[in-house]
Amino acid sequence: MSDQPAYRFAVNVTPKPGILDPQGRAVEKSLPHLGISGVSAVRVGRRVELTVQAADATAARAVVDRLASELLSNPLMELFDVEVLA
Amino acid sequence: MSDQPAYRFAVNVTPKPGILDPQGRAVEKSLPHLGISGVSAVRVGRRVELTVQAADATAARAVVDRLASELLSNPLMELFDVEVLA
Repeated sequence: MSDQPAYRFAVNVTPKPGILDPQGRAVEKSLPHLGISGVSAVRVGRRVELTVQAADATAARAVVDRLASELLSNPLMELFDVEVLA
Repeated sequence: MSDQPAYRFAVNVTPKPGILDPQGRAVEKSLPHLGISGVSAVRVGRRVELTVQAADATAARAVVDRLASELLSNPLMELFDVEVLA
C-alpha cells in the first residue's frame, strides 16, 4: 500500500437548494452587528481534505467519490463535489 | 444597494496544521467499517458560500475577507481561503 502514489482531494459538502440552513441564517443575522451589509444567500457546509494512496488517479478518485457519498454527506439533504488539490 | 453587481464567493475554513481535529480522526476511524483503506490525513473544516453586492469585485472581496477573519473562522485555530465562484 505505502508504495502507491498519494493524491490529495477536497470534498465540499453543501446543503441542497431549498433545504433549510440554520447556520447560514445565523451568519446573515450576525452581519448587522459587524456593520456589514450587502451579503446574502449564505450557505454553510463542510470541507473535508484527505489523502488517498491508490494505484492511479482514477482509482483514488473512485475511493473519494465513495467516501463522499457514503460517509461525508447526507444525500437526502446535501450535495457534494470533489476537488483535486495540488 | 440592490443596483450594485453581485459576486459569489466560497470561504474554505480548515484547522491549522498541528491543531487537533477530532472530526478528521472520527472519519479515519470509520474507514475500516466501510472497507476503505489507503486514506489518511483527513481534515474536516467548513465551507461557506455567499453572495456580496458591492461597487466592484475589489470591494466585494474586501467584505468577504473581513467576514472570513472576523466571523467565519477562529484565527487562533483555523486558516481560511477565499474562492471566487462563477
